[in-house]
Amino acid sequence: MNDWSRNFSGKNIIIRLEMNSARITFGEVATAISSAGGDIVAIDIIGTTSTATVRDLTVNAGDTGDIAKITDALAKLSDVRVMHVSDRTFLLHLGGKIAITPKTPIQNRDDLSRVYTPDVARVCMAIYEDPSKAFTLTIKRNTVAVVSDGSAVLGLGNIGPRAAMPVMEGKAMLFKQFAEVDAFPICLETQDTEEIIRAVKQIATAFGGINLEDISSPRCFEIERRLREELDIPVFHDDQHGTAVVLYAGLINALKLAGKSIDEVKVVVCGIGAAGIACSNILLAAGVKELIGVDVEGILTADSHYDNPMKRWFAERTNPNRLRGGLADALEGADVFIGVSKGGVLTREHVQRMAQRPIVFAMANPTPEIHPEEIEDLVAVVATGRSDFPNQINNVLCFPGIFRGALDCRAIDINEEMKLAAAEAIASIISEKELNRHYIIPSVFNQNVVKTVRDRVVQAAIDSGTARRIPRDFR
Amino acid sequence: MNDWSRNFSGKNIIIRLEMNSARITFGEVATAISSAGGDIVAIDIIGTTSTATVRDLTVNAGDTGDIAKITDALAKLSDVRVMHVSDRTFLLHLGGKIAITPKTPIQNRDDLSRVYTPDVARVCMAIYEDPSKAFTLTIKRNTVAVVSDGSAVLGLGNIGPRAAMPVMEGKAMLFKQFAEVDAFPICLETQDTEEIIRAVKQIATAFGGINLEDISSPRCFEIERRLREELDIPVFHDDQHGTAVVLYAGLINALKLAGKSIDEVKVVVCGIGAAGIACSNILLAAGVKELIGVDVEGILTADSHYDNPMKRWFAERTNPNRLRGGLADALEGADVFIGVSKGGVLTREHVQRMAQRPIVFAMANPTPEIHPEEIEDLVAVVATGRSDFPNQINNVLCFPGIFRGALDCRAIDINEEMKLAAAEAIASIISEKELNRHYIIPSVFNQNVVKTVRDRVVQAAIDSGTARRIPRDFR
Repeated sequence: MNDWSRNFSGKNIIIRLEMNSARITFGEVATAISSAGGDIVAIDIIGTTSTATVRDLTVNAGDTGDIAKITDALAKLSDVRVMHVSDRTFLLHLGGKIAITPKTPIQNRDDLSRVYTPDVARVCMAIYEDPSKAFTLTIKRNTVAVVSDGSAVLGLGNIGPRAAMPVMEGKAMLFKQFAEVDAFPICLETQDTEEIIRAVKQIATAFGGINLEDISSPRCFEIERRLREELDIPVFHDDQHGTAVVLYAGLINALKLAGKSIDEVKVVVCGIGAAGIACSNILLAAGVKELIGVDVEGILTADSHYDNPMKRWFAERTNPNRLRGGLADALEGADVFIGVSKGGVLTREHVQRMAQRPIVFAMANPTPEIHPEEIEDLVAVVATGRSDFPNQINNVLCFPGIFRGALDCRAIDINEEMKLAAAEAIASIISEKELNRHYIIPSVFNQNVVKTVRDRVVQAAIDSGTARRIPRDFR
Repeated sequence: MNDWSRNFSGKNIIIRLEMNSARITFGEVATAISSAGGDIVAIDIIGTTSTATVRDLTVNAGDTGDIAKITDALAKLSDVRVMHVSDRTFLLHLGGKIAITPKTPIQNRDDLSRVYTPDVARVCMAIYEDPSKAFTLTIKRNTVAVVSDGSAVLGLGNIGPRAAMPVMEGKAMLFKQFAEVDAFPICLETQDTEEIIRAVKQIATAFGGINLEDISSPRCFEIERRLREELDIPVFHDDQHGTAVVLYAGLINALKLAGKSIDEVKVVVCGIGAAGIACSNILLAAGVKELIGVDVEGILTADSHYDNPMKRWFAERTNPNRLRGGLADALEGADVFIGVSKGGVLTREHVQRMAQRPIVFAMANPTPEIHPEEIEDLVAVVATGRSDFPNQINNVLCFPGIFRGALDCRAIDINEEMKLAAAEAIASIISEKELNRHYIIPSVFNQNVVKTVRDRVVQAAIDSGTARRIPRDFR
């Protein structure tokens, strides 16, 4: 690669083409690409014969670049054949995004005899005699399974386990990059609750923790509850609790700006799915007294009957004044709106019904419940799930540090205390001086996040009795 | 570490001790160790207080070194407390032996958006639309599961999945080190045949192949057979086929030395378990006409009844002359003895009954069926499973290359043709000029092995129709 093959952040594509070098010049090819709006930033010759050459052209299609326009222009040239077009995202995923590597090389017979037969037998027997040694002598010490059935992947829905793999591999990368946790993707070829529970229990040997991911509601509740009960390692459904922890972190700081106290605010949670229930749970644990859930059918109340047991459970624990009606009714005088529903359900009029200095978390993805700019003038703080607005509520702030902490103290569970501690840790990254309405939550690239979360989580695990080991820096 | 902390291949141990530095000098400690036969090769200070220091002493206990003698000598010193003793093997296994690493770093928002949301969605959808793209866009392209239930680990027996982990991690290291295959250990918390089959099918999404390992007979047969039928990726029980492939490789060269032909020799297989049946199968496939199996109950014959269906199956396909009796009877005039049974079952008298220039593979581990030196003068060739005698029959010669080949051509199976090709490849590494009775099989560190095996296996897969992709170097 030449040094002018800079990494554009825009839409770089790689076009592999075969050209009849006797009948067309590269200049003609380059001209065709330029006239279609493309900019050639790198050329790699892949192979040549006496009559043809195969080249990979890295082409920047520009921000408004139309890839089809460029390939169409090339297709019109009679002595050029476009073999393949790929973009940088696809290239990054080629062959998968994670590798499994030995920690020490095996270069000779002596190395081999230590890591494998015959010496490995002594290590096996040490674990056989004391199974807890698996936490020191195997990858269990530092390895998490990222488990999905592909039933609720991102905003894509039930695309199945195969198509979910790129997300789980990405998650494994984040675990390592942010928290030095080894994570391996397990995408299960079943969407049956009992089969998922059984499979995860059967493969748990290698792992020190289970991160459940993108499993649809309501199965995710039962799967998580049962696995937490039946396994002696932490099980954490990130879509629920990761979101809840980061939301609460943001709320801690938002309340400071609004000058309100957690036990006095009226909170409306819109969208009572997996994330909505988890957000509600952490807020109740944090001291919220008046929490009202709103779903497509309106306000949830203990007076109504719900087939979904989680909704029944939710209705019984929330809405103390048995309020009825729709979203607009719920929002009357509310201090906080938490949206984990879908794009556009919140209006400016809704927000005008809220209390003074309201706080809006519009976390639906990719389209928030309301566009932040529509209510900038009305609110104390507005946050979304998107990276192109301020105050992004992003799970990446939570799961690396919370698992780092859980693994370091060999926690048997990630309990409510550890989740609250993680949220407080994330909120604490932003100093009083830095705190402002566009900066209530740190960036995922803030280097203090993971260490701070990990430390608070370890302390909470020790205090709440889930830690099986006191890390050296806590002794 | 100082540069005098050389890596001794012998019994290095690490002693962590606390000494009262006011009341004892390090010289006194060193003297105690020396008089007990130990040699201090490295010192690391771990911590100090005003009265005590904690040090890690790396001590070479010598080839005949008695570790207890050294620690006893230290225990007698009143102002020294031995906190922990570990040896280099255990230290190598600390925290597990493999790591999971991102192939590209995630340093900024742009990286994050490509490997994870939102861009990853396009990659997911590409796989959703064409599931075969999992082989190019996920780790499925290069990743093998090393699956065990811990029921027959090395010579240790049924030690269970947790204690089996160090072996499976070691295997994963070998896969990467020798063949650039990513492998991940899956130790299942079940020993039920149907549950194992179901679990492996459910987790197969991430993998391009399944290496079954250390699963006891006869369950291993059913598990392998069913998984080969029900999965579209190769499933290979290494204890069976790895052994069989390398045995046959050795036999090809041994027969050259003995001046005999595969279709004319009488072969006795001693020990009709998983490996014995696999060795017999490959030899029958390779053209052996007269093969006699001997078990603890004597020669297997189609005239007898066997409860074990594999033995019944075996008896029907072997022993064409319906020979009866014990091992001595079977060996009368036999050209080849293949032992996969237990130490000491073969005697010099047995070998004297064999044909001229007999070939003995005494592969029981750790004690061979007969000590090679006892029959050196009687045989054309003797081989064992041990690295401290010549001619080691070691699975490491087979599984890295055979899986490298299977993954490269995206084989749907590892069939008999591919196994025979792998054996011929291993045998071919040794030239006619090099071949001698102490060198019939290459070292596992011979750098030509994996590439040669891979090439022949790919060709055999293409020829036999199991390849779904023609690797670039075969086009």
